Amino acid sequence: MPSNSNTIYYTLTDEAPSLATCSLLPIVRTFTSAANIDVKITDISLAGRVLSSFPDYLEEDQRVEDGLAFLGDLTQDPAANIIKLPNISASIPQLKDCIAELQGQGYAVPDYPENPQSDADKDVLQRYGKSLGSAVNPVLREGNSDRRAPKAVKEFVRKYPHSMGKWSMASRSHADYMRDGDFYSAERSVTFADAEDIRIEFIDANGEVTVKKALSMQAGEVLDSMRMSAAALREFLEQTMDDAKHSGVMWSLHVKATMMKVSHPIVFGHAVTVFYKDLFEKYETLFDELGVNPNNGLSSVYEKIESLPRSKREEILEDVHACYEGRPELAMVDSVKGITNLHVPSDVIVDASMPAMIRNGGKMWGPDGKAKDCKAVMPESTYSTIYQEMINFCKTNGAFDPTQCGSVPNVGLMAKKAEEYGSHDKTFEVDAPGTMRVVDSTGNTLMEHTVEPGDIWRACQTKDEAIRDWVKLAVNRSRASDTPVIFWLDRNRAHDIQLIKKVEVYLKEHDTEGLDIRIMTYVEAIRRSMERMIRGSDTISATGNVLRDYLTDLFPIMELGTSAKMLSIVPMLKGGGMYETGAGGSAPKHVQQLQEENHLRWDSLGEFLALAVSLEDMGIKQGNAQATLLAKTLDEATGKLLANNKSPSRKVGELDNRGSHFYLGMYWAKALAAQSEDTELAERFAPLAKAMANAEKDVVAELERAQGKPVEEEGYGYYHADRAAVKRIMRPSATLNAILAEINS
Amino acid sequence: MPSNSNTIYYTLTDEAPSLATCSLLPIVRTFTSAANIDVKITDISLAGRVLSSFPDYLEEDQRVEDGLAFLGDLTQDPAANIIKLPNISASIPQLKDCIAELQGQGYAVPDYPENPQSDADKDVLQRYGKSLGSAVNPVLREGNSDRRAPKAVKEFVRKYPHSMGKWSMASRSHADYMRDGDFYSAERSVTFADAEDIRIEFIDANGEVTVKKALSMQAGEVLDSMRMSAAALREFLEQTMDDAKHSGVMWSLHVKATMMKVSHPIVFGHAVTVFYKDLFEKYETLFDELGVNPNNGLSSVYEKIESLPRSKREEILEDVHACYEGRPELAMVDSVKGITNLHVPSDVIVDASMPAMIRNGGKMWGPDGKAKDCKAVMPESTYSTIYQEMINFCKTNGAFDPTQCGSVPNVGLMAKKAEEYGSHDKTFEVDAPGTMRVVDSTGNTLMEHTVEPGDIWRACQTKDEAIRDWVKLAVNRSRASDTPVIFWLDRNRAHDIQLIKKVEVYLKEHDTEGLDIRIMTYVEAIRRSMERMIRGSDTISATGNVLRDYLTDLFPIMELGTSAKMLSIVPMLKGGGMYETGAGGSAPKHVQQLQEENHLRWDSLGEFLALAVSLEDMGIKQGNAQATLLAKTLDEATGKLLANNKSPSRKVGELDNRGSHFYLGMYWAKALAAQSEDTELAERFAPLAKAMANAEKDVVAELERAQGKPVEEEGYGYYHADRAAVKRIMRPSATLNAILAEINS
Repeated sequence: MPSNSNTIYYTLTDEAPSLATCSLLPIVRTFTSAANIDVKITDISLAGRVLSSFPDYLEEDQRVEDGLAFLGDLTQDPAANIIKLPNISASIPQLKDCIAELQGQGYAVPDYPENPQSDADKDVLQRYGKSLGSAVNPVLREGNSDRRAPKAVKEFVRKYPHSMGKWSMASRSHADYMRDGDFYSAERSVTFADAEDIRIEFIDANGEVTVKKALSMQAGEVLDSMRMSAAALREFLEQTMDDAKHSGVMWSLHVKATMMKVSHPIVFGHAVTVFYKDLFEKYETLFDELGVNPNNGLSSVYEKIESLPRSKREEILEDVHACYEGRPELAMVDSVKGITNLHVPSDVIVDASMPAMIRNGGKMWGPDGKAKDCKAVMPESTYSTIYQEMINFCKTNGAFDPTQCGSVPNVGLMAKKAEEYGSHDKTFEVDAPGTMRVVDSTGNTLMEHTVEPGDIWRACQTKDEAIRDWVKLAVNRSRASDTPVIFWLDRNRAHDIQLIKKVEVYLKEHDTEGLDIRIMTYVEAIRRSMERMIRGSDTISATGNVLRDYLTDLFPIMELGTSAKMLSIVPMLKGGGMYETGAGGSAPKHVQQLQEENHLRWDSLGEFLALAVSLEDMGIKQGNAQATLLAKTLDEATGKLLANNKSPSRKVGELDNRGSHFYLGMYWAKALAAQSEDTELAERFAPLAKAMANAEKDVVAELERAQGKPVEEEGYGYYHADRAAVKRIMRPSATLNAILAEINS
Repeated sequence: MPSNSNTIYYTLTDEAPSLATCSLLPIVRTFTSAANIDVKITDISLAGRVLSSFPDYLEEDQRVEDGLAFLGDLTQDPAANIIKLPNISASIPQLKDCIAELQGQGYAVPDYPENPQSDADKDVLQRYGKSLGSAVNPVLREGNSDRRAPKAVKEFVRKYPHSMGKWSMASRSHADYMRDGDFYSAERSVTFADAEDIRIEFIDANGEVTVKKALSMQAGEVLDSMRMSAAALREFLEQTMDDAKHSGVMWSLHVKATMMKVSHPIVFGHAVTVFYKDLFEKYETLFDELGVNPNNGLSSVYEKIESLPRSKREEILEDVHACYEGRPELAMVDSVKGITNLHVPSDVIVDASMPAMIRNGGKMWGPDGKAKDCKAVMPESTYSTIYQEMINFCKTNGAFDPTQCGSVPNVGLMAKKAEEYGSHDKTFEVDAPGTMRVVDSTGNTLMEHTVEPGDIWRACQTKDEAIRDWVKLAVNRSRASDTPVIFWLDRNRAHDIQLIKKVEVYLKEHDTEGLDIRIMTYVEAIRRSMERMIRGSDTISATGNVLRDYLTDLFPIMELGTSAKMLSIVPMLKGGGMYETGAGGSAPKHVQQLQEENHLRWDSLGEFLALAVSLEDMGIKQGNAQATLLAKTLDEATGKLLANNKSPSRKVGELDNRGSHFYLGMYWAKALAAQSEDTELAERFAPLAKAMANAEKDVVAELERAQGKPVEEEGYGYYHADRAAVKRIMRPSATLNAILAEINS
């Protein structure tokens, strides 16, 4: 591998961020090149990943490099410096759309095999599996996670707070979860003193043993196993629906099918078949024949019945509607289009939907378009309790006040696919009564669960190296920011009991004198963090991988109105750094607006912030003072952009993503021209600052003129776009293009 | 004072307990006399206290000893052994009723002066003041408080749990309280290093100083001062009514006007005049003339307008009803009789009404007799937050399950009228704008508050000796019961900051090795206690005086269904002991049933339990082994009584209070006859055991026959009963009377 010391790898992803990249990068490179830093693009888009999985199906000139694999290798390089933009965590429907689009563009990738029978089908399915769900993050996150609100953003929000829905003390909203029979209640966990080969086995009623998986555990590694009872889950779902119906609140499901991509779609599917119980019972045979998969949501019914005669379709649709009679109102994803919470699993992800509800005074949107109180159902109780705690807190103390709020930065255990993130290949839907067990190389049973058909069983691994680094990162962040740390570890949970032992040992490796470091259950921890937060104090949350994911949306959305404005850093185990941007997803609605109005409301603030930390780290690691100066001036420019309100507007005709890039460039150039630390850079950027200032009116006018009509570009695809076409769309200002061409010439 | 070593002083109080005493004592004395223990009655009834206050108004033969003063002196005797039954904490209306009854019986006690003008009137008012509210407890409680659920009771409840209302997660009920402007937010506190004479002063707008009170502080004493803003209170009340109206829940007030007998009636009065704002504004002049006092509730309006012509009265009543239009539904004390929560202040005491609501699934009774969700308004936030915490907890975890629940015993700081309990003579309703301040003997201002007319200002004292003894008691109880202790002290509250310092010092005086002792805010403490409680674990709450009062109803009502079954011990500072019974009040409804049906459902369980501890302590302190044996066998008898369900029934014709006393005596005699520790006692009680067993059917039949018709006894008064008449009512079984006469002859 060549030296990467002076290279920033900037990921090309999907949807809005990939569009924004096309506008932003030419500006960024104008600056970084002055410090001899190369910004290289690596394609990790869904389409790119699909194409790179099937070289044998493609013409030679259609084949693409596997960008994700490249970056995966790069994470092992101490000089790695990666800026990672949000990408699609594809659901099956999304993946199938992408495949169809690629096929339409002439790429002979195979169909997604719904019912793989042949070995060839199974091979295809296995290859596609690598592009499903959270496929990118587990590969790249070769370190733990450091997420925090940048000072500039926090200051901006204190002055210009986002709106917060009012909470009523009489709100009926709440979060409900299983009290028994779920993963939490049946979790077992062991730590391996020495390296050990283990097997996951199923023993059927006749005692016949099937090896489901063989694994090599490292010394110090933690292995959990857990079981969710399908019967208990279905009974719970039924009860919650009855209860919501009875108490007159809407019913809403919240899972994380994208991340827990094997277990949670099954949970989602149970919700669909319980809610529409009469429908699925009546058409059991037909739906089987049609290949309806409730795990993909009610949309699967709509999709599969398309092939039926009209009269039959109408009969089924009537039966769908009949189901609503005995059920509570369903919370809607899109009440205008009639898209309910049970339509597709990717629409109801916990970490996005729950903060939205809480920020909205505990209300979700009903079928009539009105905001209403809601029973938020999160079957697996492990992490759900924190939402109920926050709901109770808001009922008692009112909505969080962004102008007064402290912050809850996160240090997340993430490295080496820690915990549930690494469970996908160890998750099984049981199809016969029996026992799932984990045995060591000598045949000793380490953990076991009695299981029934339909139960979900999974195992999760956590590497000792990751835990040790996580503790170090937490201590370092506490020291660096003079902020207390709470390790969110539940002394009643099997896995956390193992972790608490390790945390207590590894804390001793550090100087913790004068630091306030505590270990608390999730509910205690969130309560303390909130109590401090409303009094303006910050508290670092040191959490496991799932809570990292949840909290880095939950708190930012309260504090900042969005998680996209967070700094998200992955200090790699091997010494490199990854700087993630915009945890808020890849914004398909933004693309829709662009297509209809040629206005892109994506805010690249996350990219600005990530780039600044990326440059700052490069400055330190490579002793590149110019990089350090670029970082500093970029932060100044970002602060100015916020203060002058040059972020993209949501409305067509106003400043959009492209315009905000122009302003960032102008402020950055001005900041460099104005500084006296490095006269070479000052002189270099003074003309650019001047040119951009002079051109401000023209550029803004040109950008505005481009808006207001649908985008009609040849070769433009949703998943796989022709880059030249994207360039025409995203760089419409001839004046700006000319200025950049001039300075880079 | 003669030696009290072998004397138990048993208090004669009011209402149901005083009736029960007449039946129980002859049985008790039959046993105690065997151990040479004398059980003497001391009258501390409301009527007795009134009579003893006015010897100069009475005929010589009408004069009575001041039983309360006698017991007050006795508390200083290391040999003191007092069994204290529940007595009336009189509101002004109750006191006036009592006066009228005494006058009707020929006692020339003076009228209660509503508007004292003359010095004579003021003297009368001052004498009556000593009988108002919690007048008895502050005199007798010359020690801190040790309250816990007796093992026998806890075991009984685990087997035969009381009913608990179901909690819905969608419940709208909540507790609301002031966020600013109340006592909590304006509390100041100082600790005096040395003895110091201080003055409480009011400075008016012209700088003129009025001394409101001079006090001598002891070394180490804590003095607090606090202010509740009338304007803030009224605005808060108005807001809560609007909010309840808007969100469709009932509105309910919860204060403690009996205990905080100066400050809380004023708070209550504001609630009345805000709720019925239009009424009080319209009739301001008339009501002033009539002497309507809203601090006595809406009942004061009803009472005072009696003197008006019918047409005027009807006009006013129509205007009362018109007030309900713009207001939320009011929670009812008695929906059948139309008695609302704002009728009289003594009906809405926090410690009784809030647990009842929480036990009832968060519901109170509406005007239509239906149980409904409620906004429970407790203006002063200091202690209110714990109820909101418990409500949220029940919404999340469901109702407490008595069969699984752990216990929350209390060690309460109570000695020397600690804290708010001693505030009555230092509470002032401000009548002009200015400053209230506390100055030391050299004129230095120690604490001050800017005040407006109507504001309530009060000071509270806590003696160092009491705090030190409280810490000792908490450590002792923790050690004796092997139970963790939480000191409920709020590090954000001025008073508690002083206490925390002392607790930290005094804890060092004890061996706390191996004990789990923590200091937590009220909300943290109740949360932790509840989390442990639902998992079956006990947690001692070491609290201040008001929380002692509140918690020793709140937790027992959840755990045991009633607070009357708690052991309530006051280990006196001077070494004596007081054993309180039945914290559940003196049960006026029971008396009503007795009068109508001659059935007394009062449960003397509290007396049984208290007597056992009283005897146990006497055994230890006086080296009286027979007392110890009596205690042990009494507890056995009580356990048997519970197990055999021989407690009083609520229904006429079934076993009542008198019958339960018979069974207690029979089981006690049997236990003594069966033991082999003391053959003298065994032989002495064997005949009684036999006689009672043989007479069981007859006695029960005789007791049953007495029931079912109204009591019509000459000389029977509600407050001041002829003891001979009470004896005829309460000892109707000739068979039982004969058996007792026989053994005592």
